[in-house]
Amino acid sequence: MTQLSPAELETALRDIGARRYHRLHPFHKLLHGGKCSMGQVQAWALNRYYYQSMIPIKDASLIARCEDSAVRREWRSRLADHDGEGADDGGIARWLRLTDGLGLERDYVISLRGLLPATRFAVDAYVQFVREKTLLEAVASSLTELFSPQIISERMDGMLASYSFVTRETLAYFDKRPPQAVRDSNFALDYCKTNARTPEQQQQVLAALEFKCGLLWAMCDALHHAYVDPKEIPPGAFTPDG
Amino acid sequence: MTQLSPAELETALRDIGARRYHRLHPFHKLLHGGKCSMGQVQAWALNRYYYQSMIPIKDASLIARCEDSAVRREWRSRLADHDGEGADDGGIARWLRLTDGLGLERDYVISLRGLLPATRFAVDAYVQFVREKTLLEAVASSLTELFSPQIISERMDGMLASYSFVTRETLAYFDKRPPQAVRDSNFALDYCKTNARTPEQQQQVLAALEFKCGLLWAMCDALHHAYVDPKEIPPGAFTPDG
Repeated sequence: MTQLSPAELETALRDIGARRYHRLHPFHKLLHGGKCSMGQVQAWALNRYYYQSMIPIKDASLIARCEDSAVRREWRSRLADHDGEGADDGGIARWLRLTDGLGLERDYVISLRGLLPATRFAVDAYVQFVREKTLLEAVASSLTELFSPQIISERMDGMLASYSFVTRETLAYFDKRPPQAVRDSNFALDYCKTNARTPEQQQQVLAALEFKCGLLWAMCDALHHAYVDPKEIPPGAFTPDG
Repeated sequence: MTQLSPAELETALRDIGARRYHRLHPFHKLLHGGKCSMGQVQAWALNRYYYQSMIPIKDASLIARCEDSAVRREWRSRLADHDGEGADDGGIARWLRLTDGLGLERDYVISLRGLLPATRFAVDAYVQFVREKTLLEAVASSLTELFSPQIISERMDGMLASYSFVTRETLAYFDKRPPQAVRDSNFALDYCKTNARTPEQQQQVLAALEFKCGLLWAMCDALHHAYVDPKEIPPGAFTPDG
C-alpha cells in the first residue's frame, strides 16, 4: 500500500462515488426518469423511511464513541437535522410528509410491517458498522453525502416533471438536504483527510465508503427485484394496490 | 412485588435520594463545610472531570438506543448542555475553568493521568450500564439529577464562603446546572412514571437509581480514602503539592 496525499485520498473517494454511488442504479434511473408506477414510488419511499428513521441512531452511535467534544458538537447538528427542534420540522417528519403525500398510511409506514427484509439488513448493517468499526471508518461511511446533492437535484427535477402524484410540498425533505449534506460532508471529508495518516487508515476510509455505497446499492437492488423485475415481492412486504 | 402507583414510585425514588445520594457522604461534608485543603479540592475537581467528560458519551449512548424521535430530541439538549454550542460554553469547558481556577494544568487534567483508578471504574460502569441495560433503566439512572440542585446550592454557598482560592467565576459550572437539572430530571421522572408499568419495571427503575447513587458514593469513597483518611494515594494518582 502506498501513502496517499490528502488530495489523492479525496480524488480516490470521489472516484468511488463516480463508480459506485446508487445514482447509477437502474432503479434510480427509472425513478428519476418518470418511469415508475405510483406503487413503485410508494415502495421506494416506504423502504427508504427505515433508512431515514435509523440515521439519528447511527449518528448518536458515532457521537457515543467520540472522545473529542468538538467533533461531537459538530456531529450533533445531524441529530438536530433529522429529529428536528419540534415534532414537525426534522428530516424524519418531512419524510413522513412524503409518504403521506404518496397516499401511504402513516401508521403502516412507521410500523415497518411492509419493509423488504433486505432493506432492514442493509440499514442495520450500517448502524452496526458505525458501532463496531473505528471512529475514522464510521466517519468515512457518511461520505456518500459528498454525492447526494447531485442525486437530490436530479430526483427533484425528474420526479416533479414526471409524476402527477408528486408535489413540491411532498418533496420538502429534499429541499432541506443539500446544504446540510454539503456542510456535513465537508466536515467528514476534512476529518478523514486529516486523520487517515497511514496507508492502512486510508484504505480503511476508502473501504468504508465502498461499504456504504454497496449498502445503498443493495437497497435499490431489493426494490428493483421486488417491484420492477422480476416483480417478486417477498411474503408480507408492501404490495401496491391494483 | 406490588404494583406502585406513579406517585408511589416517585416517593420511593425520592426516598432513595434522601438515603443514598452523595450529598450525605463525609467527603462532601468536608468539601462544602470548608474543611478541605486546596489539594483535596483539586483532587475532587480533577477526578470529577472524568465524570463530566463522559456524560455526553453516556447521553449519546442513550440516544443511540432510542427509537422514539421525540425522546431523542429531548435528550439531545443534554449533549448541547455539556458540549456547548462553541468551544468555550459547554459544561465540560466550564468544568475546565474550575480546574484552571484551582491551579491545575489543563493538559494534565485532560490527560487523565492523575485519575484515581476507582473513579475510572465507576464512571465507565455508568456508561456501560446505559449501553447495556434497558432504555428505561438507562433513563432512570439519570434521576440523581432530582437531587442535584440542593447539593449544588450547598456547594456554591459553602465553597465560596470557605475557600479563598474559589471564586464565583471558577464555579460558573454550577450556576448553569440547576435549571438544566430540573428540566432534565422532570422529563426523566415523567418518562419513568409513564413507562415503568409492571412491578418488575418499577423495581428496575428503583435499582437503577440505587446503582447510580452507589456510583457517585464510590467516587467519594475513593477521594476520601486517597486524600482524607487514611490518605493512601494509589501509585500514579494526583498528589497535591506540599
